[in-house]
Amino acid sequence: MSKITINNIAIIGLGLLGGSVGRAVKKYASSIHITGYDSNRDSINRALDIGFIDDTAETIQDAVKNADMVIIATPLGVFADVATDIIPTMKDNAILTDTGSVKGAVIDMIAPLLSLNPKIHFVPAHPIAGTEKSGVDSGFADLFQNRMLVITPLEDSHDMAVDAVKEFWESLGCHTQMMNHAHHDMVFAIVSHIPHLIAYNIVGTANHLETVSQQEVIRYAASGFRDFTRLASSDPVVWRDVFLNNRDAVLEMLGRFIEDLSDVQRAIRYKDGDALLELFTKTRDIRKKIIDAGQESPKDNFGRN
Amino acid sequence: MSKITINNIAIIGLGLLGGSVGRAVKKYASSIHITGYDSNRDSINRALDIGFIDDTAETIQDAVKNADMVIIATPLGVFADVATDIIPTMKDNAILTDTGSVKGAVIDMIAPLLSLNPKIHFVPAHPIAGTEKSGVDSGFADLFQNRMLVITPLEDSHDMAVDAVKEFWESLGCHTQMMNHAHHDMVFAIVSHIPHLIAYNIVGTANHLETVSQQEVIRYAASGFRDFTRLASSDPVVWRDVFLNNRDAVLEMLGRFIEDLSDVQRAIRYKDGDALLELFTKTRDIRKKIIDAGQESPKDNFGRN
Repeated sequence: MSKITINNIAIIGLGLLGGSVGRAVKKYASSIHITGYDSNRDSINRALDIGFIDDTAETIQDAVKNADMVIIATPLGVFADVATDIIPTMKDNAILTDTGSVKGAVIDMIAPLLSLNPKIHFVPAHPIAGTEKSGVDSGFADLFQNRMLVITPLEDSHDMAVDAVKEFWESLGCHTQMMNHAHHDMVFAIVSHIPHLIAYNIVGTANHLETVSQQEVIRYAASGFRDFTRLASSDPVVWRDVFLNNRDAVLEMLGRFIEDLSDVQRAIRYKDGDALLELFTKTRDIRKKIIDAGQESPKDNFGRN
Repeated sequence: MSKITINNIAIIGLGLLGGSVGRAVKKYASSIHITGYDSNRDSINRALDIGFIDDTAETIQDAVKNADMVIIATPLGVFADVATDIIPTMKDNAILTDTGSVKGAVIDMIAPLLSLNPKIHFVPAHPIAGTEKSGVDSGFADLFQNRMLVITPLEDSHDMAVDAVKEFWESLGCHTQMMNHAHHDMVFAIVSHIPHLIAYNIVGTANHLETVSQQEVIRYAASGFRDFTRLASSDPVVWRDVFLNNRDAVLEMLGRFIEDLSDVQRAIRYKDGDALLELFTKTRDIRKKIIDAGQESPKDNFGRN
C-alpha cells in the first residue's frame, strides 16, 4: 500500500479544536464521514444539531472502530485514558493523531500503549490555531486557514501515515512543518505557553489589589490590560494540562523571562533610561515581520477600533 | 468670569496623541483654531499638509502666545523644558493641560514653574486612548470616541479651567473622570505600564534565545506571542519616559506581579494542578466585564480572523 485513504474519521473531544476540525471537514473535505465523541453527552447532541459530526456511538470504543483516522482533541490530562480506551479497537492501518499543544508528554503517554495494537500508526500533531473561546459552539470552519500544522513524527512513524495526516490538514487550510518533539515543546513554551501564563498572572495580580478596584481595571482596560485578558480567558482545564505536561520547557523559558524582567526592574530602579530605550527599540521590528509573514493583522489595535 | 471659552488651541507635539487631538478637533469641534508645534520641523510641515493644524510658528513661544488652551502632547521627558519655554508667554487665563500617562511627576515638574506666570491655569489630564503606532501620520479623529479622560486637578485648580478641559475632551468623544494624581499613577501602573513592560520583556526574551530561532517565533506567533508584540511596538521614547517618571508605582506593581508569578512557577514545579486551575478560572470573568463596559471587542481573536 502506497497511500492511506481517509474516508472515515473519528473526533474525540468536540470543543474549540475538535469542533473546528468537524466544521472545516464539512466545508473543505466534505466527502469524509465524521463520527464524533465527547465525555459530555450534551456536547455530542449539540454537535449533531449543528451538523459538524455525522454520527456518534454509545461508547468511545464504538466511535473509533470504523475510522481511518482518529483525532484526539481533548485536554491533555485525559489523553492517556482516551488512548488506552481506543487503541485496542482501532482497525488495522488506522492512524491515531491529536491536536495537543505539547508533544513530548503526549508521546510518552501514548507510545507505550501502541503495543496494545501494533497495526495502527501514531502521528503526533499540533495545529497552531485557536481562539480564547472554548466549548462545542466555539469552533469555526476557517480556523485553520493559513495556519501552521506541526507534525512531530516518531522515529518509526510510517511515511504514508505522516503523509495522510499532512494531506488531511492541508485540505483544511494548514501549512505543514515537521519538527523534533523536544524542540517543538521548547518553541511553544516561549511562543504560546509563557504568553498565556503571563496573561493569566497579570490578570490575577490586577484582580486582588487593595489599592485599585476591579471597576477601575475594567474602565481603563483599553490602555493595555485588555490585550492580556484575551489569552487569560482561555479554557482553564486545557491550560492547566499544558503547564503540567510541558513543565520542564515552561520552567526553563519562565526562568529566562524572569531573569530578563529583573534586568528591566533594575533599570527602572536605577533610572537607566538607555537600557530601557535599547530594549524597547529592539522589540519593534518583530511585529512587522510577523505581519509580513501573514500571521497578524496589520491594522492598528488589531483592527478593533 | 464664569466660563472659559476655547477659540484657539496650541498643540505641542504632533505624534499619535497630538495628531489625533488635531484631527478630532477638525472633525468634532471645527470652529477651534489650531496652532501646532513640534521639535521636528518635518512633522510640522506634514501636519500642515494633512491639515490637522491650521498654522504654526517659528518658535514654541510664539506658538502658544494666542492660545486659550495649550496641550502638551510630547513624551514626558521633555515636559519640563517645554513648560519652562511656554509658561512665561502664555496669555492671561489661558489653560495649560497635557496628555501625559503619568500625573504625579508631571505635577512635580510643572507646578513649581507656574510662579513664572500666576495668571494661567494648569489642569493635568490623561486621555486613555492610543494605538501601538507613533508619529505624525499615526493619529485619527475617532481615537477618543467612547474612551475615558482622567483629570487630576491640583488643590488650587479653578473649577472653570477644569470644566473647560472637561468640555473640550467631551466634545472629542471622551467620558471624564476626576482622580487623585497618586491614585491615577497606581491605577495606570497596573492597567497600562506593567502590561507594556511585560510585553516588551517577553518579546526581548524571545529575541535572544539560542534554542529557538526568530524565524520560528515569527512563524508560530499566532499561538499567543503575537498579542504581546502589539504593545511591544509602541514608541520607545514615550515608554522609556513613562517608566522613569512613574518609577515608584511601577516598581510596586511589578513587585506584586513577580510575587504572583513565583507562586505560579512553584505550582508548575510541584505539579499543583488545583492551584493553576483556580487561577485560570478566576481570570475568565474580567474579560466579559471589560467587553460589557464597551472597552473591548466582543469578537474572537479581537476580530482579526
